[in-house]
Amino acid sequence: MKKHLLPILFACSLPAAVTAQQQDSLVLRRIADEVLTHSTAYENLRILTKTIGGRLAGSPQMVKAEQWGVKALQAAGADTVYLQECKVPHWVRGEREEARIISNRRDAVPPLNVLALGNSVGTGKAGITAPVLEVASFEDLEAKKDQVKGKIVFYNYHFKPTFIKTFYSYGDAVKYRGQGASKAARYGAVAVIVRSMSHAADNHPHTGAMGYDPAYPKIPAVAIGLEDADRLSHRVKDDASAKVFLRTNCQMLADTIGHNVIAELRGSKYPDQYLTVGGHLDSWDINEGAHDDGAGCVQSIEVLRAFKAAGIKPTRTLRVVLFANEENGTRGGRKYAEEAKARKEKHIMALESDAGGFTPRGFTTTMDDAKKALLYSWKPLFAPYGIYDFEEEGGGVDVGQLAALLGTPIAELSPDSQRYFDIHHAASDVFESVNKRELELGAFGMAGFIYLTDLYF
Amino acid sequence: MKKHLLPILFACSLPAAVTAQQQDSLVLRRIADEVLTHSTAYENLRILTKTIGGRLAGSPQMVKAEQWGVKALQAAGADTVYLQECKVPHWVRGEREEARIISNRRDAVPPLNVLALGNSVGTGKAGITAPVLEVASFEDLEAKKDQVKGKIVFYNYHFKPTFIKTFYSYGDAVKYRGQGASKAARYGAVAVIVRSMSHAADNHPHTGAMGYDPAYPKIPAVAIGLEDADRLSHRVKDDASAKVFLRTNCQMLADTIGHNVIAELRGSKYPDQYLTVGGHLDSWDINEGAHDDGAGCVQSIEVLRAFKAAGIKPTRTLRVVLFANEENGTRGGRKYAEEAKARKEKHIMALESDAGGFTPRGFTTTMDDAKKALLYSWKPLFAPYGIYDFEEEGGGVDVGQLAALLGTPIAELSPDSQRYFDIHHAASDVFESVNKRELELGAFGMAGFIYLTDLYF
Repeated sequence: MKKHLLPILFACSLPAAVTAQQQDSLVLRRIADEVLTHSTAYENLRILTKTIGGRLAGSPQMVKAEQWGVKALQAAGADTVYLQECKVPHWVRGEREEARIISNRRDAVPPLNVLALGNSVGTGKAGITAPVLEVASFEDLEAKKDQVKGKIVFYNYHFKPTFIKTFYSYGDAVKYRGQGASKAARYGAVAVIVRSMSHAADNHPHTGAMGYDPAYPKIPAVAIGLEDADRLSHRVKDDASAKVFLRTNCQMLADTIGHNVIAELRGSKYPDQYLTVGGHLDSWDINEGAHDDGAGCVQSIEVLRAFKAAGIKPTRTLRVVLFANEENGTRGGRKYAEEAKARKEKHIMALESDAGGFTPRGFTTTMDDAKKALLYSWKPLFAPYGIYDFEEEGGGVDVGQLAALLGTPIAELSPDSQRYFDIHHAASDVFESVNKRELELGAFGMAGFIYLTDLYF
Repeated sequence: MKKHLLPILFACSLPAAVTAQQQDSLVLRRIADEVLTHSTAYENLRILTKTIGGRLAGSPQMVKAEQWGVKALQAAGADTVYLQECKVPHWVRGEREEARIISNRRDAVPPLNVLALGNSVGTGKAGITAPVLEVASFEDLEAKKDQVKGKIVFYNYHFKPTFIKTFYSYGDAVKYRGQGASKAARYGAVAVIVRSMSHAADNHPHTGAMGYDPAYPKIPAVAIGLEDADRLSHRVKDDASAKVFLRTNCQMLADTIGHNVIAELRGSKYPDQYLTVGGHLDSWDINEGAHDDGAGCVQSIEVLRAFKAAGIKPTRTLRVVLFANEENGTRGGRKYAEEAKARKEKHIMALESDAGGFTPRGFTTTMDDAKKALLYSWKPLFAPYGIYDFEEEGGGVDVGQLAALLGTPIAELSPDSQRYFDIHHAASDVFESVNKRELELGAFGMAGFIYLTDLYF
């Protein structure tokens, strides 16, 4: 397309009496100009993803990421930056995961592209070879429970395409990843393979946290990509001799020490009241954690930088928190909330970004109706930025701990979700999948939200 | 992030009296389910982009694309498919474009990555070597007009980052591509180099149409990418001996014959009234034309397919038009409108998709206030799909011809614009840059829009 459009003008001459909302609108425009012109979010993300990469809790990269966080927050202009120690789980993948279809048939079967699920036990060095029982759902598992013993159960539950926001597809499907192993172990399964929770048109397996029900044996759990899932499904239907050989070397070690990285911009009027904005510093080990959640970290840092650069002084203390461990434990968020409670801190608002660095569309929140009414009154302020969706209940997992312990109003940035589960927890969550302007618009949205919260909450 | 959300339910039991809008809402949901579950848009796009590729008017690929369009529309279930002949321009790039900085200094200077602008003349086989005069704008050119003679003028106008919708940045900057050559030729320039109209974080040059003012000599015009533009700018400031060697082999040949590809789904009640939905089949030669405008073509085809598959029979005749030539002539749109006028056809609505296959956000329109009021009353129907932005004046370039000749109400799908100018008219506009669900949601939006138009316009 080649259309020629006239620029619209944002600066306009003001009537003598400027309403509060007009005034707010000008401040938001000032923040947007600052972020879209001078943001360091994208360059910060490049450094985090390309020089450190995947940074699971307990890994050497975790330590490097904490050091990066301290430096980046200092460079953004924080008054103070400090580490808050917390225990984190220490799961390691180990080397060389493999899976392949074993068959009496002579046709070549390429290996399955496999990833152990986070927190899973490994198969042991010898691996596991067993026939495969495909199930479509937990109901199907129940119906086939007499066939499970000695088998590898293959959860081939399809990610639903008809939800508009893909987080609903995730919410619908993720139980097979989280609980599938124990439910199958109950009936004697020796391992589980889970179809990845994704709409992707590729074959990347998507990892993610799982947990064990202590009532049943711990069996290995892995994910495979969508093409491999279809291939495996066809094979086990066509070929009665087909088994799967599976070898993973992952294990859960003893807890270790990690840190929430915290920066403050001291409040001008109420320094003992807090506005928290954050993302989680940890990521899965097999990618760069660019969208999940490098994006949320650098956007949170950008909120502080943009406030300083645009000369906006919050009346409350702004806290940027890079949470230590979300992916396989939520230990960072829990520690932060516990400390806040122990110190009897007064928290006004906690805002998280942990749904990808895509174009912002709104905020999900958990707060009382009076505060929601205030929030909705800001809609005209955000509409020019394509941010319009404020109604959904939510808030992030890390700041959710603060809501649970202190009743703090919480919110989470809600970006466009269409591409998120293409890359979520897969090797494809890399810096190149993040768009600079989309990332920056999200940072602007967060800064604007915090600015208004400070003014009206 | 790992949050667990409950699925929302779309099917609900209906009260005895169902309002019209509730009824419409159910039909839209039916269309969305059909598109998100069974769409052929993405696979159609793969075939168009990967087996045909770039398809500039007059090229052999144009003919192949027309044949593809006929087949795809027949497969979608059209009642009739036919070709509408029209004259199209025939510009050819020729082989081996090159540009490099020539200097007395001994430091190595890598070649500039260059693309001739569409419709430009070439340099001749010997190429052009001349000193470079950088200008920031047309105003700057005027101020330096005495220095222009014998020089290559380098328009280093930066794409503005502060517009939220990137089409405004484009509207602001594209005049340097469109008119820059003649404005510089007026003062004796021998060629122009234009900084690409893009926010991209890469070095792809972005081509696009330019035109000549017959009052001045035709001089060659090329685009360079953003990194090369910065490099060239630094070099001409630092190095008084720097010149640029430029060679392009493009030329405008005599007009040739192309075709609008048109399919109809016959109206059940008013077959002589028309609802047009379309995109343009031509693309630039140096990419796959995936977003621009393969996406618009396959989305338009999908509207027809989804109507058929979901059992929706429009009362007016639905016309899907794959316009022959938009990029360097708008001949397809003009021909379609001229024929419609000559046949005294009654056109109720014409909807275009030519702003990329990204997540849909709304529609731009040109229509009278009464129709706009109707349109705005549909907002609650589209809100669940993230489509909320209906206020902007607009409508596409191709359907704009129908508005101009017949006064037809027109509209254009308005997708998220953040990534569009990263790939627009550059080698990076390939199939892989299109997301399946984003493409499908756009097709749904168009189908829903046409459905409601047929009902209420």
